[in-house]
Amino acid sequence: MKFICSKANLLHGVNIVSKAVPSKTTMSILECILIDASANEIKLTANDMELGIETKIEGEILEKGIIALDAKIFSEIVRKLPDNDVVIETDSNLKTTITCEKAKFNISGKSGEDFTYLPYIERTDFVTISQFTLKEMIRQTIFSIADNENNKLMTGELFEIKGNQLKVVSLDGHRISIRRIELKDTYEDKKVVVPGKTLQEVSKILSGEAEDEIRLFFTENHVVFEFDSTLVVSRLIEGEYFRIEQMLSSDYETKVKINKREFLNCIDRATLLVKEGDKKPIIIHIEDGNMELTINSQLGSMDENIDIEKEGKDILIGFNPKFLIDALRVIDEEEVSVYLVNPKAPCFIKDDNETYIYLILPVNFNAVNR
Amino acid sequence: MKFICSKANLLHGVNIVSKAVPSKTTMSILECILIDASANEIKLTANDMELGIETKIEGEILEKGIIALDAKIFSEIVRKLPDNDVVIETDSNLKTTITCEKAKFNISGKSGEDFTYLPYIERTDFVTISQFTLKEMIRQTIFSIADNENNKLMTGELFEIKGNQLKVVSLDGHRISIRRIELKDTYEDKKVVVPGKTLQEVSKILSGEAEDEIRLFFTENHVVFEFDSTLVVSRLIEGEYFRIEQMLSSDYETKVKINKREFLNCIDRATLLVKEGDKKPIIIHIEDGNMELTINSQLGSMDENIDIEKEGKDILIGFNPKFLIDALRVIDEEEVSVYLVNPKAPCFIKDDNETYIYLILPVNFNAVNR
Repeated sequence: MKFICSKANLLHGVNIVSKAVPSKTTMSILECILIDASANEIKLTANDMELGIETKIEGEILEKGIIALDAKIFSEIVRKLPDNDVVIETDSNLKTTITCEKAKFNISGKSGEDFTYLPYIERTDFVTISQFTLKEMIRQTIFSIADNENNKLMTGELFEIKGNQLKVVSLDGHRISIRRIELKDTYEDKKVVVPGKTLQEVSKILSGEAEDEIRLFFTENHVVFEFDSTLVVSRLIEGEYFRIEQMLSSDYETKVKINKREFLNCIDRATLLVKEGDKKPIIIHIEDGNMELTINSQLGSMDENIDIEKEGKDILIGFNPKFLIDALRVIDEEEVSVYLVNPKAPCFIKDDNETYIYLILPVNFNAVNR
Repeated sequence: MKFICSKANLLHGVNIVSKAVPSKTTMSILECILIDASANEIKLTANDMELGIETKIEGEILEKGIIALDAKIFSEIVRKLPDNDVVIETDSNLKTTITCEKAKFNISGKSGEDFTYLPYIERTDFVTISQFTLKEMIRQTIFSIADNENNKLMTGELFEIKGNQLKVVSLDGHRISIRRIELKDTYEDKKVVVPGKTLQEVSKILSGEAEDEIRLFFTENHVVFEFDSTLVVSRLIEGEYFRIEQMLSSDYETKVKINKREFLNCIDRATLLVKEGDKKPIIIHIEDGNMELTINSQLGSMDENIDIEKEGKDILIGFNPKFLIDALRVIDEEEVSVYLVNPKAPCFIKDDNETYIYLILPVNFNAVNR
């Protein structure tokens, strides 16, 4: 195999597929990036068996062929090459030479035949959205997936399509995050659970530009993301997702309008009195026109007041401050509305059209100790 | 005690003195910042017994007093306060209230009387240099101090003043770094060894502006850095520094002029084939007009050529690539001169006036294996 391409193109491709190289694996071939120049295009592929990424790079093939190269070494070499054309050449012993200007690297490759290719997915009907929108929806929900594997479904996100609506949901047992957008077209109903890791990696590769589009294909067991010159194939998580509708009551006893930045900064300040692993709640006391936030820990105490607009009853309620911070950080509005029922019922942060809903369970606290 | 000052001033002061708060100590009072508003100024002090820093901040004292506050909590609180005036007030039980806008923190302090003050140093004759120059000289030499304590003197840097010359030297047994500048005035001869940690911390606090000056006072056992509103007091390392003159021969068999950036980038590329802890040398082959650099490791091999100007004999010599990189990184010139004698003798990278000299010992290598 021999081909020539620009360092910039090569690096871009390597960075994309590297996201699917497993950090730990017993199969050393999976630690490789496959370079396939056996047809009329140069394709890079990486695959950790759950998630696979394939991308095409521009270049000129001088001799067709295929090779698998250790992803770590190869990407470090490419990163440090001068900004110029790169020639990659392999011999019959899989010895690979990477030449750029006067620099010449030799590394040994592995046979491409040992590599596990991505599963072949028939790509017929698809959903189109902008890369910006998908990247935003992931960012705005990914923080509330569960990070342990006790309940596999909680480690993924629900993607539900109904007509021209796309809804993305994540939950971890303490909170639920929901984002909803309108699609340009109307589609057949779909309901799948995409692994959180897949979404995190896809989100890193997406350009994030509103004009750039991405196509999503759903099959029985897989989801495919197609964009630019890249194809991401991921397994879906099997099973039926949680029924969240019954938790989403729209009744409330107290409604608060508050400046998001003030609210967030105040909770952020309060958390510095909470040591890692400590579960000190922030206590929120809502009265007419005023929200008082207090926190008490071995390190000290904090007390702050924020002006609010209030409808309904006064309430005293406690929360894990991290959960409030996570939700407030991904809301772009300057002012948010918080809906509360009682100190034991979940609170909702949502907008009027319910394009976002963040449900957070309160924390029990000892009112005497506050 | 009660005083008021701006958040910006307070944060600036806290950031400065925090550099002298020990990360590990058995004396919990040393984990504190002392706030002394007992006279007509607000002074912050931290002291790890080797290094002490004191800085004055502007503010209005409403009630004189003194308190020691846990450095970590206090600095985190200050960092997260809104950008406005801060009031700090203590009561007779050492309870401290920090108020800013509507945020109010309570933490418990310690008695200022338990705090170990900085040693009193009579400050008479001093050396003046610009903050920029001192910061640069530290950066350009600090990397070659030894980081283990087997030889205490190697963990510091020699500061030697002779007439109007200041020379700074560091060495770790494999290499020597020397920087020399001309001072504006002529001073009495001095020769002291300043702890590397002190220099690293001082360098972080220095503005780095050429117009800002710093005054250095040397006593039998201490060095004092005085600049802006800050005083840094550090113990010196006792003992006589190494005699390096005999190692600084100016004879050479080969002289090479080379573009610094090309040389540095090439070695940097080569190191990616060297795993942490592995001691693979980079082999340099110097011939008329050409330098060939090669490296061989289990990961692969690299080979690169760079155009040079050469005087004298051809030579084949091996180096620890890190040592070359460290020296080349802190040289600002576009072109550097390298002086070599034979494959077992140190090489020198220096300029014609010897404002800098970097001596690096070569590494033995098996010529057959290259």
